[in-house]
Amino acid sequence: MSDINKVVLAYSGGLDTSVIVRWLQDTYNCEVVTFTADIGQGEEVEPARAKAEALGVKEIYIDDLKEEFVRDYVFPMFRANTIYEGEYLLGTSIARPLIAKRLIEIANETGADAISHGATGKGNDQVRFELGAYALKPGIQVIAPWREWDLTSRETLMAYCAERDIPVDFAGSKKKSPYSMDANLLHISYEGGILEDPWAEAEDDMWRWSVSPEQAPDTPTYLELTYRGGDIVAIDGEAMSPATVLAYLNKVGGANGIGRLDIVENRYVGMKSRGCYETPGGTIMMPAHRAIESITLDREVAHLKDSLMPKYAELVYNGYWWAPERQMLQTAIDESQQFVNGDVRVKLYKGNVTVVGRRSEQSLFDESIATFEDDAGAYDQQDAEGFIKLNALRMRIAANKGRSML
Amino acid sequence: MSDINKVVLAYSGGLDTSVIVRWLQDTYNCEVVTFTADIGQGEEVEPARAKAEALGVKEIYIDDLKEEFVRDYVFPMFRANTIYEGEYLLGTSIARPLIAKRLIEIANETGADAISHGATGKGNDQVRFELGAYALKPGIQVIAPWREWDLTSRETLMAYCAERDIPVDFAGSKKKSPYSMDANLLHISYEGGILEDPWAEAEDDMWRWSVSPEQAPDTPTYLELTYRGGDIVAIDGEAMSPATVLAYLNKVGGANGIGRLDIVENRYVGMKSRGCYETPGGTIMMPAHRAIESITLDREVAHLKDSLMPKYAELVYNGYWWAPERQMLQTAIDESQQFVNGDVRVKLYKGNVTVVGRRSEQSLFDESIATFEDDAGAYDQQDAEGFIKLNALRMRIAANKGRSML
Amino acid sequence: MSDINKVVLAYSGGLDTSVIVRWLQDTYNCEVVTFTADIGQGEEVEPARAKAEALGVKEIYIDDLKEEFVRDYVFPMFRANTIYEGEYLLGTSIARPLIAKRLIEIANETGADAISHGATGKGNDQVRFELGAYALKPGIQVIAPWREWDLTSRETLMAYCAERDIPVDFAGSKKKSPYSMDANLLHISYEGGILEDPWAEAEDDMWRWSVSPEQAPDTPTYLELTYRGGDIVAIDGEAMSPATVLAYLNKVGGANGIGRLDIVENRYVGMKSRGCYETPGGTIMMPAHRAIESITLDREVAHLKDSLMPKYAELVYNGYWWAPERQMLQTAIDESQQFVNGDVRVKLYKGNVTVVGRRSEQSLFDESIATFEDDAGAYDQQDAEGFIKLNALRMRIAANKGRSML
Amino acid sequence: MSDINKVVLAYSGGLDTSVIVRWLQDTYNCEVVTFTADIGQGEEVEPARAKAEALGVKEIYIDDLKEEFVRDYVFPMFRANTIYEGEYLLGTSIARPLIAKRLIEIANETGADAISHGATGKGNDQVRFELGAYALKPGIQVIAPWREWDLTSRETLMAYCAERDIPVDFAGSKKKSPYSMDANLLHISYEGGILEDPWAEAEDDMWRWSVSPEQAPDTPTYLELTYRGGDIVAIDGEAMSPATVLAYLNKVGGANGIGRLDIVENRYVGMKSRGCYETPGGTIMMPAHRAIESITLDREVAHLKDSLMPKYAELVYNGYWWAPERQMLQTAIDESQQFVNGDVRVKLYKGNVTVVGRRSEQSLFDESIATFEDDAGAYDQQDAEGFIKLNALRMRIAANKGRSML
Repeated sequence: MSDINKVVLAYSGGLDTSVIVRWLQDTYNCEVVTFTADIGQGEEVEPARAKAEALGVKEIYIDDLKEEFVRDYVFPMFRANTIYEGEYLLGTSIARPLIAKRLIEIANETGADAISHGATGKGNDQVRFELGAYALKPGIQVIAPWREWDLTSRETLMAYCAERDIPVDFAGSKKKSPYSMDANLLHISYEGGILEDPWAEAEDDMWRWSVSPEQAPDTPTYLELTYRGGDIVAIDGEAMSPATVLAYLNKVGGANGIGRLDIVENRYVGMKSRGCYETPGGTIMMPAHRAIESITLDREVAHLKDSLMPKYAELVYNGYWWAPERQMLQTAIDESQQFVNGDVRVKLYKGNVTVVGRRSEQSLFDESIATFEDDAGAYDQQDAEGFIKLNALRMRIAANKGRSML
Repeated sequence: MSDINKVVLAYSGGLDTSVIVRWLQDTYNCEVVTFTADIGQGEEVEPARAKAEALGVKEIYIDDLKEEFVRDYVFPMFRANTIYEGEYLLGTSIARPLIAKRLIEIANETGADAISHGATGKGNDQVRFELGAYALKPGIQVIAPWREWDLTSRETLMAYCAERDIPVDFAGSKKKSPYSMDANLLHISYEGGILEDPWAEAEDDMWRWSVSPEQAPDTPTYLELTYRGGDIVAIDGEAMSPATVLAYLNKVGGANGIGRLDIVENRYVGMKSRGCYETPGGTIMMPAHRAIESITLDREVAHLKDSLMPKYAELVYNGYWWAPERQMLQTAIDESQQFVNGDVRVKLYKGNVTVVGRRSEQSLFDESIATFEDDAGAYDQQDAEGFIKLNALRMRIAANKGRSML
Repeated sequence: MSDINKVVLAYSGGLDTSVIVRWLQDTYNCEVVTFTADIGQGEEVEPARAKAEALGVKEIYIDDLKEEFVRDYVFPMFRANTIYEGEYLLGTSIARPLIAKRLIEIANETGADAISHGATGKGNDQVRFELGAYALKPGIQVIAPWREWDLTSRETLMAYCAERDIPVDFAGSKKKSPYSMDANLLHISYEGGILEDPWAEAEDDMWRWSVSPEQAPDTPTYLELTYRGGDIVAIDGEAMSPATVLAYLNKVGGANGIGRLDIVENRYVGMKSRGCYETPGGTIMMPAHRAIESITLDREVAHLKDSLMPKYAELVYNGYWWAPERQMLQTAIDESQQFVNGDVRVKLYKGNVTVVGRRSEQSLFDESIATFEDDAGAYDQQDAEGFIKLNALRMRIAANKGRSML
Repeated sequence: MSDINKVVLAYSGGLDTSVIVRWLQDTYNCEVVTFTADIGQGEEVEPARAKAEALGVKEIYIDDLKEEFVRDYVFPMFRANTIYEGEYLLGTSIARPLIAKRLIEIANETGADAISHGATGKGNDQVRFELGAYALKPGIQVIAPWREWDLTSRETLMAYCAERDIPVDFAGSKKKSPYSMDANLLHISYEGGILEDPWAEAEDDMWRWSVSPEQAPDTPTYLELTYRGGDIVAIDGEAMSPATVLAYLNKVGGANGIGRLDIVENRYVGMKSRGCYETPGGTIMMPAHRAIESITLDREVAHLKDSLMPKYAELVYNGYWWAPERQMLQTAIDESQQFVNGDVRVKLYKGNVTVVGRRSEQSLFDESIATFEDDAGAYDQQDAEGFIKLNALRMRIAANKGRSML
């Protein structure tokens, strides 16, 4: 354990990662570099500086990554209409590769030979951090304290803190929650506590980012979202940066009771786990993106995207953002978005997101053909007969040869 | 045109198909057999008998197919979590193969050599009817009047009726709607009228099966759905037949503002079209089925199902129910449902369907492993290191060989 | 039929397309532009000029498209390891989009309002020509004489020729073959005649481009193929253009009895058909490309390509080269080829193509890890235990819950 | 290490697994049960009995599993036309789940609490054995000596043998090979030695099961294979059991120089490895099965099978035979084979397998439609126009809206 000289730690400023700072110093006798990122989790990151200093950390990185996060990770993922297991918008998953990348960049800058994180040995996040790190710097060493140490109960952890003079009220309000939580600009998640019983309904006071549909306003809110290349670039006519878009949608969505989700999901490490999520902005973006695609994408491109999506979602969920197959899929997805431009109008009301209009200069919706009225010859109904007959031919031959479908 | 002796017509009793009866008699000089089915469209079918008789029809079939429809078509489709283009629950599509099958059965019983239907030459329904018919009886002839006749404007149609003494108030209230509608136990659809402008919001008085979320009750409704083999067999502890399940969910869902959808979809014949749908029961069944699967299906089976679903949905949408590839997929899907048993608790509130609990005797959710508490050795966190390292190996080798992902 | 002013015809110079020239002139009273391309079919194209002139054609296009054909169509397709229905290398299919493109370019240059071709109404080629034409120029008119005229027997055709003074020995040697043939630089195909009985073995004198394995030399030929970006750029160290590469491989392959194939395939128009093919160069390129990929592609990229290939092959076979979904797939495939550089050594012997060596500066084959000898710690065998245990976890949980796989 | 009472070892009778017997006895102080199977590896299994007895083993299982192997593993896999990475017929992979199953059955019969095998920590076989074992008996313990012990060099192994009086000429002729080999009725494989250089050609004297194409007879051999439900049930009219079929094809194929393969493949544990394989019978069965399917399978069923195959192959290669997703796929594949009946005629000649005829009472090849001659109206060529026009519609609309494909 003596061959680590310097380790970069993903440091939240909370109790657990503060203990990890000390434990790394003690156990590996090495220097610790802390890295704290603002990815929109809704807590101040600057206080982490003093805490790290108090722990004797000399190299402290505090970054605002909100724009990079939304522009280079959230938006590309939404271009694919990505949903894991039919439900989950991948709020936690999509932040991990960015953290992994910054850990490695900082390791390169500071000459560190290892990285460390506070994820447990049961979850997906360890996988996401470490696959990313290994892909970006194959010789990096990874220290995952939760897989190594014996501070696995609250008591032993507290004893450790007492011994080392680590202030246990370190983490502030967060520690009062009975849930394990994670937040970034895309979502906040809850696990543990009573959620470990999948039959138990989540308590209403668990949710932090949205009001309940019951408490949302009695009148709807309408938004007009403007897309360019598959990404939202303006809301109600006002141009916005990616992070501003998402923050705005979170605010409006949350106020209208939008984005709560309660699921049991399959972890990459092999177990099922119950999770609750609030994703107000993402829950608006998903049908809105489909709506702008519905008039601008070719049918077969849209269907090809749908057929690739489950694989893409699995890759993101499992931590393969920095893998070449994800990149290959992304290339195809991005290529498909060149004409995904236009406006979508959505209505938000007490938990509902309803698309009520979509328009585009690149629209492929052709009123002259689609109309129920006389189309002046734009479409020849006679063509349908041959279309159907040839599509039926293989089945007719089979039936003629005595194969019955009944 | 003289070689048709008898034709079985899918007859609604409305004006259009009544005109078709007469037109077939006139044009083909043949006998017409009418077939009217109750598939839950919410209108009486028995009045069609007198109308058909008045048109001189001698063989009249009026069938209640509601149970068969839900049991053999709707439920099998929901086992696959089937959604077309991310949104559409395929309410129209799934009824067509059943109609096609009955048309052919009746043709066999009555010795008819042709079938006929009232679908236009621009839509999907002609394809669905005719692919089914050809697959089930390859030598059948198909007459699609809308592709043949010249009654393409309201005026020529009315003149035709006047000439032939067809009463034009035949269709009752339905003809007052500016929309083209289709209904069955799974949904009601609306097309045409102002919906032909995809930017225009649907008018509130268009919707017929559900109240708006705004008008729904201020208190939620909870339901407990019991699954066996992937199908709902009881609600709130009361055993119900398939059609009763769906009717009940439609009623409760509609009363809670659930199931409205407004999309632009890609038709099989090549154009985009705007459609609005009300699918109250289906909108409840979709997340509920996913919820019971979430605790009872193996992860990889669930992912395999997700990867096959877009293909399956395309087959159903395009009219390939009676095709061997749909049957092959169904075999796999049905095989996957053997353990999909248990209960799901859903909360319905002003348009929202929220799963709040799920339980099963076949649950694969293992609290002893998933817990954030001490798991008494059920899971060895050390295993994660090797798992990650071998999964990362190919990427580490690539990075070592100089391939950079950044 | 009077609204066509000028039509561009894909003109081979043979009897059938010469009759079409006259028939178009007669039937549509329009000017005919002929277009004859050298795509490596192995026949002189220049003689087509005099024949067209004799038929009164004023605008005559004769193009050498061999390089464009291989560079922009054959090579991109081979990057995907494309095989239709497990066997067919798509030799006919891949030439059609190029012809379609040139027909449209010439229509644009000459102001023609229609194109025409000599493909029958039963085959795939009509689809490939016409889908391409419509995609590239949506207002183009298409005249497919074989679907329109009544010259469907040899007798009526001969009578027509006699009436119009069309010399019936026009097509030269080709008409003596009992087979319907098509050739380009990638392959030559045979259909019809005794091949219409799928149980009958093809006669040995049918084959034109290769000797039989029995007649091939008794000593093997070795080739070293050099790849850049997934394409062959040199053979035995000599740089070659795409068309030269393929011509060279055809010659050497054919001389060694390589590339004969006898299959029953599924046409897009719904029937099965028997075809025999000689594809000497392509039959060498296929395993060679896989071999260079085997050491340069990431595993998951390779598997993703394999999973996309059947769809890609179907698109090419069905005539969707000029469709956006083909382009989307191509983007992904091309992106995957950036590191596919290096050399492959193949042995050709009496019909066999055997890869005997592959090397690359971008190789991901890591001898220090793969070795059966001591690897000096490059790979930690302990990692395998955790890898296996976590991959087994979901199955262990299921078995613990009583699900038996036996 | 004291908690193992009894362990079932997959025992070949060779030196390595004999050392393992002793090492297990010494290290775990437990009883060892040996299990030796004849799966067609071409060596006597009965001698293993005396060797095991000499090592003090009391419970000795020697099974002839050849029929079960081919019937329940090889044949089901060939129904899917399974090929890994475009080349490999999965000869090693497919035997492992059967061994795993027998190990667990014997553990159940003998009350053993562990299983053990001689596979190394770098390969796929450890994964295949252990995933199978865990899936079938989740509480089983697995001992993989090569991941645990320090006998990693020839010297330490020899020293260990000397110490324990294990006769080092135990393995007989096999140890003289410089290659790591594995054999069963489907194939024999070679790895290691000079093969670790992917540029080096395999030496001709390495191959054991086939003559080289050069040394094969100068006259071809024809076989007629009869299929029922996708499996071969007779050759040249003589009914044969599954194992007899494969043994016969191996003999005839090997004599004709058929079935050699030299590839670099991607292992599940993350590295690339070079392997050479002889699979004479399988190399005949693959195109023959495709040939019988080519006339009996519906097109879309065939294409669906092709799209599922890469996933199925990956599952078999990676060791997921006993996983529910493999079972789900198998259900679909087996369902597709109900009409795959008939005869295939193949020509074997110096390494080449050529299908020269196929016939079936369930054939979907319809000569009256496919013919180049007059089809008497069986197919209406006019239908093609509508078929093409509607398939082109989406592309025409896009082009009309200004999207250019060029």
